[in-house]
Amino acid sequence: MKHLVKRRIMVLGGDGYCGWPTALHLSAQGHDVAVADNFAHRRFDAELGTGSLVPINGLRTRLDTWESLTGKGIIPYIGDVVDYGFSRRIITEFRPDTIVHFAEQCSAPYSMIDFDHAVYTQTNNVVSTLSVLYAISQINPDIHLVKLGSMGVYGWPNIDVEEGWLEVEHNGRKAVVPYPKQSADFYHLSKIFDSHNIEFACGAWKLRATDLHQGIVYGQETPETAMDARLATRLGYCSVFGTVINRFVIQAAIGEPITVYGGGGQGRPYINLRDTVRCVQLACENPPEQGEYRVFNQVTETLPPMRVAEMVADCFPGTVIDKIPNPRVEPDDGYYNVVHTKLEELGLKPNLLSGELIGSLAGIVRRNAHRVRPELLRPAYDWHQAA
Amino acid sequence: MKHLVKRRIMVLGGDGYCGWPTALHLSAQGHDVAVADNFAHRRFDAELGTGSLVPINGLRTRLDTWESLTGKGIIPYIGDVVDYGFSRRIITEFRPDTIVHFAEQCSAPYSMIDFDHAVYTQTNNVVSTLSVLYAISQINPDIHLVKLGSMGVYGWPNIDVEEGWLEVEHNGRKAVVPYPKQSADFYHLSKIFDSHNIEFACGAWKLRATDLHQGIVYGQETPETAMDARLATRLGYCSVFGTVINRFVIQAAIGEPITVYGGGGQGRPYINLRDTVRCVQLACENPPEQGEYRVFNQVTETLPPMRVAEMVADCFPGTVIDKIPNPRVEPDDGYYNVVHTKLEELGLKPNLLSGELIGSLAGIVRRNAHRVRPELLRPAYDWHQAA
Repeated sequence: MKHLVKRRIMVLGGDGYCGWPTALHLSAQGHDVAVADNFAHRRFDAELGTGSLVPINGLRTRLDTWESLTGKGIIPYIGDVVDYGFSRRIITEFRPDTIVHFAEQCSAPYSMIDFDHAVYTQTNNVVSTLSVLYAISQINPDIHLVKLGSMGVYGWPNIDVEEGWLEVEHNGRKAVVPYPKQSADFYHLSKIFDSHNIEFACGAWKLRATDLHQGIVYGQETPETAMDARLATRLGYCSVFGTVINRFVIQAAIGEPITVYGGGGQGRPYINLRDTVRCVQLACENPPEQGEYRVFNQVTETLPPMRVAEMVADCFPGTVIDKIPNPRVEPDDGYYNVVHTKLEELGLKPNLLSGELIGSLAGIVRRNAHRVRPELLRPAYDWHQAA
Repeated sequence: MKHLVKRRIMVLGGDGYCGWPTALHLSAQGHDVAVADNFAHRRFDAELGTGSLVPINGLRTRLDTWESLTGKGIIPYIGDVVDYGFSRRIITEFRPDTIVHFAEQCSAPYSMIDFDHAVYTQTNNVVSTLSVLYAISQINPDIHLVKLGSMGVYGWPNIDVEEGWLEVEHNGRKAVVPYPKQSADFYHLSKIFDSHNIEFACGAWKLRATDLHQGIVYGQETPETAMDARLATRLGYCSVFGTVINRFVIQAAIGEPITVYGGGGQGRPYINLRDTVRCVQLACENPPEQGEYRVFNQVTETLPPMRVAEMVADCFPGTVIDKIPNPRVEPDDGYYNVVHTKLEELGLKPNLLSGELIGSLAGIVRRNAHRVRPELLRPAYDWHQAA
C-alpha cells in the first residue's frame, strides 16, 4: 500500500457545492488544507432569489464544526483570486504544494442571462486562472495546479471524446493535437479558454497542472459532510444552479413532473459528488512532472437525460415526464462516447447512478420539501436570444 | 463584371496600422465608411516609449485630408467598444450592414510584459468582441461581422493547417471539427477565445461572421495612403509592435545586423498590407449566409524567418544576419504548410515578398532613418518567465 505523502493543499472556491466537500475530504485524508473563497455563490443567490434546498451554514461555522468533530483545522482565506495581490498573499502565507481551483462562476445558465453576466463569467474565470498561474510561477513553480474544467468543452462531436488529445492522420502526415473544442454557452467557453492558458503556461514556464474536465455532478452527501448537519454542502435545485439529476429527483420527490429539455436522447456525462472529491484527491496525490499539462475526463458514466428521467421516475410511481422546449443550444440526439480511464487507473472506484442513490437523495429532499419554490425549477433564460 | 453593392461599413480600430488603410480602401471602393477608435495604440506608444517610424497624423487630420483629396467623408466615432453602451450607440447611429473589427490589442510581446498586460489583452479583446456580438444581435442580426483573427491560433502542428475546420476519422467514425488550436502567447490565445465566442454566437443567435486568420502583415503603403504624406499609416519597428519583415528591412536599411530569433528555420505565414485591405474588401463584399461562421486564412505565402532575412540581406550588400536567443516560445524548425484558397477564390491576387517591395520599404525607412532608436529593435521581454 502506498504511503501517504502529506500535502499542503489550498482549495480555491472552498465554500462551494464541490469545493467544500473536497476540502473536508482532503482534510480527512490527513492533508493540511486551507480554503479561499469570495462567497460569490452566496451573492448569486441573493441576486437571483435562489438558494440551497438543504440549509447550509456560513464558512466559519462549517470550519468550527469540522475542527470540533475531528480535531483538524482548515485555514480560511476570504478574498478573490481575480485580485492578483490576494493570490500572491495566500500562496506566500500558506505555502501550498498543491492548489485546487474551483473558484469560478460555475453555471452555464448564469453566463447566458445577458451581456453583463457573459462578460462577468468569462473575465472572472479567465482572470482567476491567469492570476493563479502567474502567482505560482513567481512564488513557487513547483506547485501543482489542479484545475476544475468541464466535459462541456468538447461539445458533441460524432467521434469518441478522448482525454485531452487526439491523434490525427491528415494528408499522409500524423500529429497529436489538443482535442478540438466546441461549447454551447459562455460558461463552458470560459473553461476552453482556461485550458488553453494553462497548457501554454505549463509549456512556457514549466509549471505542472491537471485539468479535470468534469461531468455533470449530482448528489449532495459525502462521508464527511454526512457527519453533521452543520457540514452540509449546498444543493442547488433551480434551473440556474441545479444540475440535471438533482433537479429530476427533486421534481419527482415533491410530486412535480420531471421536465426534460428537448428530446433528451443524446448521452451526457455524469459524476457522483462522492467521486468528485475522490478524483481531486487522486489528482493531488499523483502530481504530473514539472512542465506537464495533464487532462483527465472526470466522469464515470454517460446517459441520455431521458434515460435518467426514467430511472428517477421508476423510483416514484406515478411520476410524469414532460418534454419541454430546450432553452439550451444542444442537439437532441446523436453519438456521444467519452473515454475516461485515467482516473480509474489511479484507483477511482465509480459510484454509478442507482435507485439506491436516488432514494437517498429523495430522503434529503423530503426533509427539506417545504423549502422548494417550484417556480425556480423552470428555465428562466432562452439561450437562443442575446438578452 | 459584378455590380458594386454599396455597403455601410463600420471599421472598429480604424486609426490603427491595418485599420486605417482598410477604412481608406473601402471608402475608395465607393462604400460608406465610419471608423471607431479609442486611440489605444497611441497610448501604448506613450507607455512604452515606442512609436511609428513614419510620422503619422491624428485621426481628424487624416480624415480631413482624405475628404479634401477625394470628396469622400468618413465618420469618426471616438470611444471603446469594450463599453457596451458605445457599441450599441455607434451601431444605432451609423446603421452599418458590415462591421470590420480590428479594435483589439494586437501585439504578442505586449501581452507577455506581465500579469497586468496579459489580463488587459485577454479581457480587452474578448470583451470587445462579446460587446459587438451582443450589440449586433440586439440591434440588427443581419449585420455581417468581419473579425480580424490570426494565423497564430493554429500553432505549428505536424499536419497541414486547414481553413477553419478539419475532417477527421477516428475509431472508424468521421467528423468535421474546428481545427485544433494552440497558441504561444496570451495575445494569440485571445484570438482563439474570440473565434470560439463568434462561432457560438453565429450558431445560437443566427449571426453571420467571417473570421480572418491573418498572417504577419508587412509593408506600409497602400494606393490610398500613398496619395498624401498626411494619410500615412504607422510603421512599428520596435520589438513589441514591429512585425518581422518590417523589422528586418529597417535593420538592414540603417546598417544594423538583421536579428533572427532562434534558428528561424520553420515557415511563418505572411501577407502584404496591400493584400490585407483587399482581403477585407472581398470579405465585406461577399458576406456569408445568416447563421454562418466562416474562416479564411488571410495569408499569401509562408517562409522561414531565416529565408526572409536572406532575401532582405540580398538587397543590402554587406548586411550581417545574427541569430539571437528566441524570446518567444516557438519551435526552431519543423513542418509548416498552410491552406489559403478561399480569398483567392473570391478574387485576391497576392503581392508576394520581392526585392522590389523590400526596396520600396527601404526608401520609406531611409527617409525616416533619423527617427530610429536602435535599442527598441532588441527584444525587451522573455516569454519563458512569468514577469
